[in-house]
Amino acid sequence: MKKIALETINTKAPDELDKNEYKQELVNLHAELFSLQHLFYASHTYSLLIVFQGIDTSGKDSTISRVFSSINPLGVQATSFKAPCDMELEHDYMWRIFQKLPEKGMIQIFNRSYYEDILVPTIKKTLPDNIIEQRYDFINAFENHLLNNKTLILKFFLHISKSEQKKRIQERLNDPLKKWKYSDEDVKSSEKWGDYMKVYERIINRCSPEIPWAIVPADNKWYRDYIVASAIVEELKKLNLKFPSKKNR
Amino acid sequence: MKKIALETINTKAPDELDKNEYKQELVNLHAELFSLQHLFYASHTYSLLIVFQGIDTSGKDSTISRVFSSINPLGVQATSFKAPCDMELEHDYMWRIFQKLPEKGMIQIFNRSYYEDILVPTIKKTLPDNIIEQRYDFINAFENHLLNNKTLILKFFLHISKSEQKKRIQERLNDPLKKWKYSDEDVKSSEKWGDYMKVYERIINRCSPEIPWAIVPADNKWYRDYIVASAIVEELKKLNLKFPSKKNR
Repeated sequence: MKKIALETINTKAPDELDKNEYKQELVNLHAELFSLQHLFYASHTYSLLIVFQGIDTSGKDSTISRVFSSINPLGVQATSFKAPCDMELEHDYMWRIFQKLPEKGMIQIFNRSYYEDILVPTIKKTLPDNIIEQRYDFINAFENHLLNNKTLILKFFLHISKSEQKKRIQERLNDPLKKWKYSDEDVKSSEKWGDYMKVYERIINRCSPEIPWAIVPADNKWYRDYIVASAIVEELKKLNLKFPSKKNR
Repeated sequence: MKKIALETINTKAPDELDKNEYKQELVNLHAELFSLQHLFYASHTYSLLIVFQGIDTSGKDSTISRVFSSINPLGVQATSFKAPCDMELEHDYMWRIFQKLPEKGMIQIFNRSYYEDILVPTIKKTLPDNIIEQRYDFINAFENHLLNNKTLILKFFLHISKSEQKKRIQERLNDPLKKWKYSDEDVKSSEKWGDYMKVYERIINRCSPEIPWAIVPADNKWYRDYIVASAIVEELKKLNLKFPSKKNR
């Protein structure tokens, strides 16, 4: 498989696209997603795990809010993984993940994920290389295990440019409605931009070909939302699910 | 406090109301709820627990789906409590509840709740009266404990008529898109209608006056959705929350 180089991949929507057309299309996708999720829940056959990764300010929260803004909360759960707390650190790095895996018929959204446990120690150099490689191997094995047991996985990397990040950090500092989201970490990640991109690139290239990453151009929110929503709709359609003829649980 | 008699309370929307006007109003409430939830999350001050109870087919799932259909899944979790499984039965009846209590800034929706552990044993006569009374007492103490620790509680009883239930059971049997929801339990609850109403009435009358039940006329979905959505919006507005001026977690 050809290796992906992030710097060769566009972060912007193609120039020729009409923003308003895509915003309208997102509304249609919301309706489709609502129906498909209902069927996914009713059929009680698969689980779906949706993983979002991306550098600080890449828009993970905002994508989740906007793509899933018309979904039944009874069938979808979203979990944000922050820096592990003391209790979580008493366990292996996957412990908190195992607890949040979706049940049959359910969609689980991960805002950050177990990939942070490769990303952060690589950047901060807190773990030796062989342990990091072990984590890559196990995460691949783990994702394949889920797939073998009817948990589908969609992984989205939100790809923004360095200048877009700079703009968004400024917004957080200046807009009183966004200030509560600002953290000094945002600036730190900006200073280490190149290091971060190198690790994301490796994460993307090192994963199982069965469970590839979608690299989402994420400088334009309307385009990003459309790409993510349509990928999920497509995945759910492919399953060709039917409503059961009787109660199945 | 005056005791409530369920049979004196209307299950229908008032005749003079205009259905389309209320449906439009729900759309406005969705937008308000979206903004208020964002602020609730950002302020990181309170938690909110929203409990739905009601006889089979009273519309618990559908209310949750329709009222929260425009909310950010990162700030809201919904849990359906079914008949306890073997593992849950190894614990006290509140064990599975404790695990699902909302964190600060989060909204947790309970589709059925710990009230089932009063309802079912009362109907099926599987527990002596003194144990049931003990549960009433503890549940009141528990809800007051939550309130004292900044978890707000809204409790909605979805109130339908016996004839409306009959109609809905028939729909489940006849509509291929609804058949997967049908269970023989639906009919059983219909046969014991009077018994069920007596227990709901006691649950409503026996609760702490600080944390009262809202009895929602639920024969008309558009009216039911409006009543629930506006009660939640009102509760959130009352808090007068402000966006923090810096990151608070």
